[in-house]
Amino acid sequence: MPITANNPDRKSWLEISQNSDFPIQNIPFGVFLTKENVVTVGSRIGDFAIDLGALQQLGYFDGIELTDDVFMQDTLNDFISDGKKTWRLVRNRIADIFDAENAKLRDNKSHRDVVIFKMEDVEMQLPVFIGDYTDFYSSREHATNVGKMFRDPANALLPNWLHIPVGYHGRSSTIVPSGIPVHRPMGQTLPNGETQPVFGPSRLVDFELETAFITTDANVMGENIPIEAAEEYIFGMVLLNDWSARDIQKWEYVPLGPFLAKNFASSISPWIVTMDALEPFRCASPKQDDPKPLPYLQQKGDHAFDINLEVAIAPENVEESIVSKSNLKYMYWTMSQQLAHHTINGCRINSGDMMGSGTISGATEDSFGSMLELTWGGQKPITMKDGSERKFINDGDTVIIRGFCQNKDIRIGFGEVSSKLLPPIPTK
Amino acid sequence: MPITANNPDRKSWLEISQNSDFPIQNIPFGVFLTKENVVTVGSRIGDFAIDLGALQQLGYFDGIELTDDVFMQDTLNDFISDGKKTWRLVRNRIADIFDAENAKLRDNKSHRDVVIFKMEDVEMQLPVFIGDYTDFYSSREHATNVGKMFRDPANALLPNWLHIPVGYHGRSSTIVPSGIPVHRPMGQTLPNGETQPVFGPSRLVDFELETAFITTDANVMGENIPIEAAEEYIFGMVLLNDWSARDIQKWEYVPLGPFLAKNFASSISPWIVTMDALEPFRCASPKQDDPKPLPYLQQKGDHAFDINLEVAIAPENVEESIVSKSNLKYMYWTMSQQLAHHTINGCRINSGDMMGSGTISGATEDSFGSMLELTWGGQKPITMKDGSERKFINDGDTVIIRGFCQNKDIRIGFGEVSSKLLPPIPTK
Repeated sequence: MPITANNPDRKSWLEISQNSDFPIQNIPFGVFLTKENVVTVGSRIGDFAIDLGALQQLGYFDGIELTDDVFMQDTLNDFISDGKKTWRLVRNRIADIFDAENAKLRDNKSHRDVVIFKMEDVEMQLPVFIGDYTDFYSSREHATNVGKMFRDPANALLPNWLHIPVGYHGRSSTIVPSGIPVHRPMGQTLPNGETQPVFGPSRLVDFELETAFITTDANVMGENIPIEAAEEYIFGMVLLNDWSARDIQKWEYVPLGPFLAKNFASSISPWIVTMDALEPFRCASPKQDDPKPLPYLQQKGDHAFDINLEVAIAPENVEESIVSKSNLKYMYWTMSQQLAHHTINGCRINSGDMMGSGTISGATEDSFGSMLELTWGGQKPITMKDGSERKFINDGDTVIIRGFCQNKDIRIGFGEVSSKLLPPIPTK
Repeated sequence: MPITANNPDRKSWLEISQNSDFPIQNIPFGVFLTKENVVTVGSRIGDFAIDLGALQQLGYFDGIELTDDVFMQDTLNDFISDGKKTWRLVRNRIADIFDAENAKLRDNKSHRDVVIFKMEDVEMQLPVFIGDYTDFYSSREHATNVGKMFRDPANALLPNWLHIPVGYHGRSSTIVPSGIPVHRPMGQTLPNGETQPVFGPSRLVDFELETAFITTDANVMGENIPIEAAEEYIFGMVLLNDWSARDIQKWEYVPLGPFLAKNFASSISPWIVTMDALEPFRCASPKQDDPKPLPYLQQKGDHAFDINLEVAIAPENVEESIVSKSNLKYMYWTMSQQLAHHTINGCRINSGDMMGSGTISGATEDSFGSMLELTWGGQKPITMKDGSERKFINDGDTVIIRGFCQNKDIRIGFGEVSSKLLPPIPTK
């Protein structure tokens, strides 16, 4: 079935600013709360939020097989369970409804009044109920940088790294959407040169620039998803700030991996941009010749995506500074490799599971995806617009991650994930 | 409010065998499916399953504030959310309903017919929807054994271990109840002495003898649960077999911890035994003097529980062999320390989250909680009843974990978690 929603020549009867992340070719999915306290599944065109529940009730999705209340829910999980064919049909239909040439909704004010909201009048929610959250570690540059700083500069990359899309489980309960502030965590750390740990607020709170993909139900327990089929089970992507407390991490992470250093908060952008919308931005990933991965991880064709990413820090009442510009295409392991690996042991994947890319660092120093790397462990502070310096994130700072794809025809963006770091809540 | 359900002198009008894990003093909670395909929240007395939804509809819980359908659900999460006071009221009431002196249900056949099922006529389900699953690593003996084998025998215990109840995130989607078979996982391993990994079925599938506790909603994000309050938020406990593939684990776990080596399956016993029922078996945990933990982990009084545990292996068509006898009281870190630590950074805890103890090994060789330790990495095989030897678990073997508490008055048990290891499903 063709992805008619991607037609770059299509114009909408809704007014959309020139550089919007959300042209009619995007049509992402999310969940929003209206001023009347109604929660609904929605989409976005320009600066308008579209109530898909209302559209469905008014018959605009007639002819597409959908359960009655699939959009009148507070998560996208059921819709995502309906599978790729349904996602595509619905997205194509939304493009059609808002096509400049289609008068049906355009010329029906009473329908428009219940379907279309200004973005400023809605509050974005977490788009899915995330049952399980996995975070990968798939940037060769990031893994190398961390290895140099924390382990052995001469053997920065661990022996398994080029064979395995290394990943670990994260915490679902503290994933929050853009706009929700995050408290600096308290915890145990081991001061340099000491043998006894101390307790207090983390002094080294960091962001991690990541993207994440959201899955649909994929397999029964015990079965794998072969790599050629993996993309069928990826609904779409969000931006992810995987907040990290480096001092807590350093003390706790051997041998079982990061735990409290990560699970105090992970922030995501609220609109899930579908893989269909990202299709025009497919590109090659880094060569995997030395070594070749095992056959279950080998794939032909282009499976990376050219997504421009940037991170800004805005101190309180100070203009933001861009501290990093990176791109998802730098990642050594692709999303389909990650999903094929994750299920090679029969691990069950559900609708709404989230899988983070791992920190996305490029080869140059201005493309690193964390303060740890950008300031090289605090040795090279970054200067803000007010002259203050940052080695890590200060209380009151807002961290903003943005992402977009651009070709000669269109720009497809993610909007942003923006979250402010607040002081710790005093321990009880 | 007194725990009247714990009265050791109480007799039931239901027939209960002498050594039952489920005397009227236990009253655990679970979810079962009847032959009529009805799913309900239930309890168990002797070999009878009690339909709590039916009891509620018939008015037996009148006077206790409960939402109308709290027991007519396929998980215990909503009931658990109601909090400790409600759990106690309901458990006390169930004890009263089935008290030998109480004629109300006893003498009402039409009520009994819809409330009471034989255990053989119901199918146990997963008792809770587990949003997040955390596994700790709290047995000093286990951590020492693993450190000796995998790292440095002279410094087996890592520097953080005596300061932190070390834990990591597990996978919720593959937690299954007793009786569901588990497939041997496929995966990458690095043969001894080689530098290139190979792909195939794991050759070293192991059990891990654990218990796990189930939480209620405890905090908002950013707030901690102080150690003195932690037990208020623990609903009850189950037995846990944290299946592990040692060869996959060895190759993948540095630096981010176990992933595919663990997330192919975790099996739990289906009845959640409440902390109220376990109250008579509270006991001291190992002294923590050298070093003393940081203040947020210090506690007074007895916070361990004296729970006898055993593991049996039954090869196909062969009588089982008991391979380990251990006890939860050996654990260095208590459940309240684990929960206080888990939330010290503000990590949000929800109703139905599950937290595993980590492998429960005692000091003696016959009390180790995994084949890895029992056979010391395969060097000392265990002989089964048919003369065959086991270094790890074979296809066709059933692994059974049992647990019970016993004092001079009563026995409170968990039943068992029993799961058969099947060959891998061929990869697609």
